[in-house]
Amino acid sequence: MEETSTQLAEEQATVQSHNTEAGEDERDPESNTLQQPLLKRNRTLSSNPLALVGAKVSHIESLDYEINENDLFKHDWRSRSQIQVLQYIFLKWTLAFLVGLLTGLIATLINLAVENIAGYKLLAVVHFIENERYLTGLAYFTGANLVLTAFASILCVCFAPTAAGPGIPEIKAYLNGIDTPNMFGATTLIVKIFGSIGAVSAGLDLGKEGPLVHIGSCIASLLGQGGPDNYRLKWRWLRYFNNDRDRRDIITCGASSGVCAAFRAPVGGVLFSLEEVATWWRSALLWRTFFSTAVVVVVLRAFIEICNSGKCGLFGRGGLIMFDVSDVTVRYRPMDIIPVVVIGIIGGILGSLYNHVLHKVLRLYNLINQKGRMHKLLLSLVVSLFTSICAYGLPFLAKCQPCDPSVTELCPTNDRTGNFKQFNCPSGYYNDLATLLLTTNDDAVRNIFSSNTPTEFQPLSLLIFFVLYCVLGLFTFGIAVPSGLFLPIILMGAAYGRLLGVAMGSYTNIDQGLYAVLGAASLMAGSMRMTVSLCVIFLELTNNLLLLPITMLVLLIAKTVGDSFNPSIYDIILHLKGLPFLDANPEPWMRNLTVGELADAKPPVVTLCGVEKVSRIVDVLKNTTHNAFPVVDDGVVPPVGLAAGATELHGLILRAHLVQVIKKKWFLHEKRRTEEWEAREKFSWVDLAEREGKIEEVPVTRAEMEMFVDLHPLTNTTPYTVVESMSVAKAMVLFRQVGLRHLLIVPKYQAAGVPPVVGILTRQDLMAYNILTAFPHLARTKSREKHN
Amino acid sequence: MEETSTQLAEEQATVQSHNTEAGEDERDPESNTLQQPLLKRNRTLSSNPLALVGAKVSHIESLDYEINENDLFKHDWRSRSQIQVLQYIFLKWTLAFLVGLLTGLIATLINLAVENIAGYKLLAVVHFIENERYLTGLAYFTGANLVLTAFASILCVCFAPTAAGPGIPEIKAYLNGIDTPNMFGATTLIVKIFGSIGAVSAGLDLGKEGPLVHIGSCIASLLGQGGPDNYRLKWRWLRYFNNDRDRRDIITCGASSGVCAAFRAPVGGVLFSLEEVATWWRSALLWRTFFSTAVVVVVLRAFIEICNSGKCGLFGRGGLIMFDVSDVTVRYRPMDIIPVVVIGIIGGILGSLYNHVLHKVLRLYNLINQKGRMHKLLLSLVVSLFTSICAYGLPFLAKCQPCDPSVTELCPTNDRTGNFKQFNCPSGYYNDLATLLLTTNDDAVRNIFSSNTPTEFQPLSLLIFFVLYCVLGLFTFGIAVPSGLFLPIILMGAAYGRLLGVAMGSYTNIDQGLYAVLGAASLMAGSMRMTVSLCVIFLELTNNLLLLPITMLVLLIAKTVGDSFNPSIYDIILHLKGLPFLDANPEPWMRNLTVGELADAKPPVVTLCGVEKVSRIVDVLKNTTHNAFPVVDDGVVPPVGLAAGATELHGLILRAHLVQVIKKKWFLHEKRRTEEWEAREKFSWVDLAEREGKIEEVPVTRAEMEMFVDLHPLTNTTPYTVVESMSVAKAMVLFRQVGLRHLLIVPKYQAAGVPPVVGILTRQDLMAYNILTAFPHLARTKSREKHN
Repeated sequence: MEETSTQLAEEQATVQSHNTEAGEDERDPESNTLQQPLLKRNRTLSSNPLALVGAKVSHIESLDYEINENDLFKHDWRSRSQIQVLQYIFLKWTLAFLVGLLTGLIATLINLAVENIAGYKLLAVVHFIENERYLTGLAYFTGANLVLTAFASILCVCFAPTAAGPGIPEIKAYLNGIDTPNMFGATTLIVKIFGSIGAVSAGLDLGKEGPLVHIGSCIASLLGQGGPDNYRLKWRWLRYFNNDRDRRDIITCGASSGVCAAFRAPVGGVLFSLEEVATWWRSALLWRTFFSTAVVVVVLRAFIEICNSGKCGLFGRGGLIMFDVSDVTVRYRPMDIIPVVVIGIIGGILGSLYNHVLHKVLRLYNLINQKGRMHKLLLSLVVSLFTSICAYGLPFLAKCQPCDPSVTELCPTNDRTGNFKQFNCPSGYYNDLATLLLTTNDDAVRNIFSSNTPTEFQPLSLLIFFVLYCVLGLFTFGIAVPSGLFLPIILMGAAYGRLLGVAMGSYTNIDQGLYAVLGAASLMAGSMRMTVSLCVIFLELTNNLLLLPITMLVLLIAKTVGDSFNPSIYDIILHLKGLPFLDANPEPWMRNLTVGELADAKPPVVTLCGVEKVSRIVDVLKNTTHNAFPVVDDGVVPPVGLAAGATELHGLILRAHLVQVIKKKWFLHEKRRTEEWEAREKFSWVDLAEREGKIEEVPVTRAEMEMFVDLHPLTNTTPYTVVESMSVAKAMVLFRQVGLRHLLIVPKYQAAGVPPVVGILTRQDLMAYNILTAFPHLARTKSREKHN
Repeated sequence: MEETSTQLAEEQATVQSHNTEAGEDERDPESNTLQQPLLKRNRTLSSNPLALVGAKVSHIESLDYEINENDLFKHDWRSRSQIQVLQYIFLKWTLAFLVGLLTGLIATLINLAVENIAGYKLLAVVHFIENERYLTGLAYFTGANLVLTAFASILCVCFAPTAAGPGIPEIKAYLNGIDTPNMFGATTLIVKIFGSIGAVSAGLDLGKEGPLVHIGSCIASLLGQGGPDNYRLKWRWLRYFNNDRDRRDIITCGASSGVCAAFRAPVGGVLFSLEEVATWWRSALLWRTFFSTAVVVVVLRAFIEICNSGKCGLFGRGGLIMFDVSDVTVRYRPMDIIPVVVIGIIGGILGSLYNHVLHKVLRLYNLINQKGRMHKLLLSLVVSLFTSICAYGLPFLAKCQPCDPSVTELCPTNDRTGNFKQFNCPSGYYNDLATLLLTTNDDAVRNIFSSNTPTEFQPLSLLIFFVLYCVLGLFTFGIAVPSGLFLPIILMGAAYGRLLGVAMGSYTNIDQGLYAVLGAASLMAGSMRMTVSLCVIFLELTNNLLLLPITMLVLLIAKTVGDSFNPSIYDIILHLKGLPFLDANPEPWMRNLTVGELADAKPPVVTLCGVEKVSRIVDVLKNTTHNAFPVVDDGVVPPVGLAAGATELHGLILRAHLVQVIKKKWFLHEKRRTEEWEAREKFSWVDLAEREGKIEEVPVTRAEMEMFVDLHPLTNTTPYTVVESMSVAKAMVLFRQVGLRHLLIVPKYQAAGVPPVVGILTRQDLMAYNILTAFPHLARTKSREKHN
C-alpha cells in the first residue's frame, strides 16, 4: 500500500523538480543580488536514503502549529467580538458532531454493502456446493472475488493511490506535524469507501477497521476546510478553522470516530487516538473526541435497531455487532495463569516476527509496485486468486465432524452467517474449516471466538487456518487496495490462541473461545504495541468485563516481549515511508551536540531586511526552498544608552506570505516603514491563511523589482528561539513539545557585528538519522546510552 | 481540610521569615557589594491575596523538571555504562511493581479495618435497637463515632496536617511542578492510613477513595527517594531517581494505583491520572502506570479470594467488591432518552451549585480552623455528633415497609451488611431509611444502587436522605480528617437519581437502580468535570457495559452544563490553596504583553560572573530568594572578526549548587577558570542532587570572602530562553509544555553593552492574576476574548 503512495509522491516530485529546474534555467544569473551563495535546492540535511520516499522527503511539508503573531493576525483576533468567539466554539462542537454523524453513517453504509455483496456471493457458492457442482462453485467464487478486487484496486491505482493501505501511519504523521500530499482529499475519501467495500467483500485477508479510521479523518479534514479542495465552501464562520492547529484537533476527532465505528468502542476509540495516533493532547480535546465517538455509537445503535427488524437485506448478525462473549462466565484458578503467560510470550514473539517479515515483504512489493500501474493491479489480482483458491479448496482437506446435539446453535447450516457450516458434508455433519474460511472475516472471527463449543474445531483445521492466515496476512497487506491490519492480526492470533486452548484440553478452566480472544489480544499487542487502548477495545469488543485482568496481563507481557525485538508495525511503516516523524524522546547522544554546531553544518541562514527590495525577495524565493526567513533590522535606533549600529531580530516571515506580497504587488516606492492600516487594507485574514501559490507563476516587471516591501506587518514577531549553546536534545524537546516548524538559533555572544540570528532549525535537521549523517562520530557513542 | 495544611504552611512561613529577618539583622550592611539594589525579599509579582495560603506562596517551591546540563552531569551520564542503564530501567519497573503491590496491600488493610470496626459497632447498635433500648443505642453509636473521629482528627491535627482532605489537588499541583511541603512524607502516609480508617469507620460522610490516591502517591514518593526523609536508604541504584522528573513519573503511577485500589478500576485509574491529575504525559508512562494498576488488581483479587473463605472477620460482601449491577439487563426505548437528559442537566446544575457552596463553606471553615488546633478538633467532633444523631434519629421518621416476598434477598435483616434493615420495625417489615443511613457508606451505595427492587425506597425517605447528604457533603469535607470527595458525591447523586426513577414510575423502562447509577455519574461529572475517566470508572465499578452509551450521554451533558457555571471542584480547591497551578491554555490577553514588558515590571535580574568572588555569592544568596542566577561572562575572547568586549550568557546556576560550593569551600586564590577534573574531584552527582541546606548555616571567614569560585562547571549551560519580544502567551506555552522552572529572557538587540540576559521568568510571573495586578489595563481586554 505505501508503495502506491510512494509512487504518487515520486510522480509529483518529478513534476515539481522539473518545474524548479525550468525556472532556474530561465532565470538571469546576473539578477542574483544575494550576498550569501544561494543554493540550487534545499540543502537541509538529507533524509534516510533507505526510505521508500527517499530523497523526496523535503516535498512532504511540515504543518504550522505555531501561533503566527504578526500585526495582521493580532489585529484580527483583537477585533473579534464575543459573538464571533461563540460562533467559533459552536462551530467546533458542530464539526465534532458532524464528524461523528458522517463517520457513523459511512460505517453503516460499508457494513451494509459488505454484508450484502459478500452474502449473496457466499449464498450462491453454497448453492453450487449443495448441488455438488464444486468446480462451478470454485469458478464463481474466484471470479466474483477477482472482479471485486479489480474494482477496488483499479479505483486505488487510478484515482487515489493514497487510499491504499490503512492510512493510520499517515494520520499519525499528520498529527505529528507532517503533511503528506493528497492524504485527506475528497477523492481519497470516496475511493477509500468504495475500495474498502470491494476489497472486504472480495474475501481478502484485510479489515475495514484501518480504512474506517482514515475515512473518519478524511471526513474531519474536509469538513474542517469546508469541502473538497476545488469546491470549498467559503463560509465566513469556517475561516476560523483555516489553520493547522484546529485541523489537527478535528482530525483527531475523526480518527477516534473511525476506531469507534470499526469496533463500536467509544472509549477504545478515544484511547486509540490518545495512545497510538496523537502527538499532542489536551484535556479539552479528550472531551470533544469523546463527544464524537458518542455520536458514532448512537448512529450505529440506531442502525442496528433498524436492521434488527430485517430491513437490511442479508445484514443480520454480521458486521457491526461484534464478537460478543458476554454470556461466558469467566472462572479461572491460579494455575490458569500459566497458559495465559504463555499466550502473552508467544504473542510478543509472533508479533515482532510478523513485523519483521512484513517489513521485508513490503520492500519486495515496493520493487514490484514501482514498475507501474499494471503491476500493482496484477499483484492484487494474484493475491485475490490465491486467497480464493485456498479459502475454497482447503476445506476439502478437513474431515466432516458430527454435530454436537448439546449445542443450541443450528448445526449444520448453509445460511449466510452462523457457525457449523455444512459445506460438502452430509446432513448432521459440519465442516469446521469451511466455518472459518468460507465466510466473511467478521464471521470468521465470531466463529473462532465462539464459546461453550469445546469440540467444534479440530487441531488440524486450526493449524491449517493459522498457517494460511499467516501467509495471507503477510502478502495481502501491501497490495493496492484499502486494507486494515486489525482483522488479519486478530484472525491469526485467535487461531493460535484457540489451538493452544485445544492443546490444553482439560488442564484448563478457561473456555476455548476465551483462549482465542486472548490470542488475538496478544498478537495485536505484540505487533501494534498498544496497551490501554487495546485493553479497552477488547473490553468493548467482547463485552465481557471479567476478561479484563487476564487481558491486561497478556497485553503487558506481549508488548514487553515484542518491544525487545523491534518497533511497532506503525513505526516500521512510518520509517519505510520516510516520513520525518519526530519522536518524543531525544537520543541520548544528542546531548553531546549543540544547535550551534548543527547550524554550522548547514548552509548559512538566508535573512531578509525589515524593508526589503522586491528583487531580493523574488531572488530568495526562487533560489531557496525554505519556508520561512528571519527578518532582521539593521541600524535600528537603539534603546537609550547603547551604541548605534545595533541589529535586531524582528521575527520570521513565511514563504506563503512573501508570495502573497508579490502577488498583490504591495510595493513601496521609497524605503520606509508603513503604518498599520496600510497592510490591513491590503491583506485580510483569509489571504494570509492561503498556502498555495508559487513564485514562478507571479509576473514581476523590471521596474517593480527596484521597489521596496515593508515586511514588518507580515512578520511573526515572536518566533521561538534557542541560544546556540543549547544541546540538540533540549532543542528537540522544545521543538516537539511546542509543535514547531522553525526554530531560530540566536547567538550567545552580545557584541556589535554579531548577526542576531545564526541559524534556523527544521524538523529534518532534528531527525536522528540526518544528524548522524552529518556528524558520523556521534554514531559511536550512540549505542552507549539509552534511556526509556 | 485545606485549612489544616494552610495552617501548617503559615506556621512554617512564620518560622522561616523569622529566620530570615534574624539573618538580615546580624548581617553587616557594609558587606553588600552588589551593584544593583538588592531586595529584602523575593519581589516576584505577588500572588492572589484571596488565596488561603496567600502571601506565603513563594515558600511553595517549583520542581526542577529541566535536564540540568552542566559539566558534571554531562560527565556523569557519559560515564554511565550499559549495565547502569539496565539497572535504571529494571529499577523503574521494580518501583512501579512495588507501588502497585504496596498500594494494593494498604487498600486491603484499610478495607479490612473499616469493615470490621464499623461492623462490630453497627452490630452492637442493632442489638440495642432489637431490645428497644433506643437511647442506649444512640449513646453507644454517637460515642463510638466520636471516639473514632477524635482519633482521626487528633492524628491529623497533631502529626500531619497535610494528611487532611483528599490530597488530590496537591498531587495535581505536584505533577504540574509545585512542591507543597510535607505532602508526601512518611508521617503523612501513616496518618493518612489510620486517619482514613478512623474517619470512615466513624460513619462520617466521606470516602476512602481520595485518601487512597494520596496514599498511593506517598508510597510512590517514599519508594522513589529510598525511604523517609531522615532515614533514607543510600542505595547506589536509587541515585538515578534522585531527580524531579523520575519522581514525577512514579508519583503518577502511585496516583493511578490509588484510584485503581479505590474502585478496582485499573483502566479507570490510569485514565483518571491522565485526564485529571497529570500535566505532562508520555506513552511510556501510560504503559508503566497500567502495569502498576494491573498489580493492584491482582492483589485485590487475591485478597477477595481469601476473604471469600471467611477469614476476614466481618468483611463479607463489603468494601472492595463494588456496586455490581451486571445482572441487570439494560433495555431502553428511544423515549427513555428524556429522563436521561434530565438527569444530566440536573447533575450539571447541582454539581456546579455544590462546587459554589462548598467553596463558601471552606472559606468559613478556614476562619474557624485558623484559630488553632482545639478549634479544628472541636469542629470535627461537632460534625461527627451531628452526623451520628441524624443517621440514628432520622430513620425513626420513616414508616416501616412490608417485605416484598418476590425479592430473593433476606428481608428484613439485622445483619451487618445487606439490604432491607429491620431497625425498629416488626418482623416482616423493614425500615428503608435505616437501610441507607445505619450502615457504612459503601453499603449505602450498594443498597441505593440495588436493582429489581422498584418499591424498596419511599420517595420521602429518599428525599430525607438526599437533603441530609447534601448538608453533610458540604460540611464534612473541610474538617481535619482524611476525606475523599467521591463517595459523598456518589451518594448525593444516587439519591436524586433514584428519586427521579421513582417519580418516573411506569413511564420508564430503566430500572431504578440504574437511575441511581446515572444520578451518581451525573453529579460526579457536574462537580469534578471528568468525562472519559469517569465513564470508565463507572463501567468498571458497575460491571455493566450496556450502560456505557447512556452513561456517556449523561456525563457529556452534566459536564457541559457544569462548565458554563464554574470550574471543577479540584480547580476551586487549587485556587483556594493558592497553589500556582499553570493552566494549559494562556489567557487571550496575554498575547498583548511581551515578556520584555513583564521583565521590566520586576526588579532587575541578579547575574553572577563566570568566575565570581565568594563575598558576592554569599551576598546574593543571603539577600535574594531566587533559586537560580544567570551566569554571564564579561570580556570573553570573541569569535574571529568581532570587536572585543563581548559578553556571553554562559548559563544558569541553581541556588542549591551555589550553597554546595560554599559549603564545600571550593574556593580559588586567584581569578582563573578551572579544569574539568578539578570540579569532578570535589563534587559528585549525589552532592548536586541535594536540595537542602541554607546559606545562613554555612560559616565563611573574612579571608575566604576575598577568594574566587569558578562557576562554569556547575552552570547549566543550556537554559531555555525567549527573546524579549516574545508574547507572554507563547512564553507560557513554552514554560508549561517543556515543564520549566526558570525561563531566561534574552535581548532582541545585538549591540555591545547590551546585557546578554535581560530578565528571568518563573511560574509566579506567568500566573494570570499576578500579571493583571502589575498591568491593570490588561484586565479591561480580558473579558473581550476567550478561546477554548
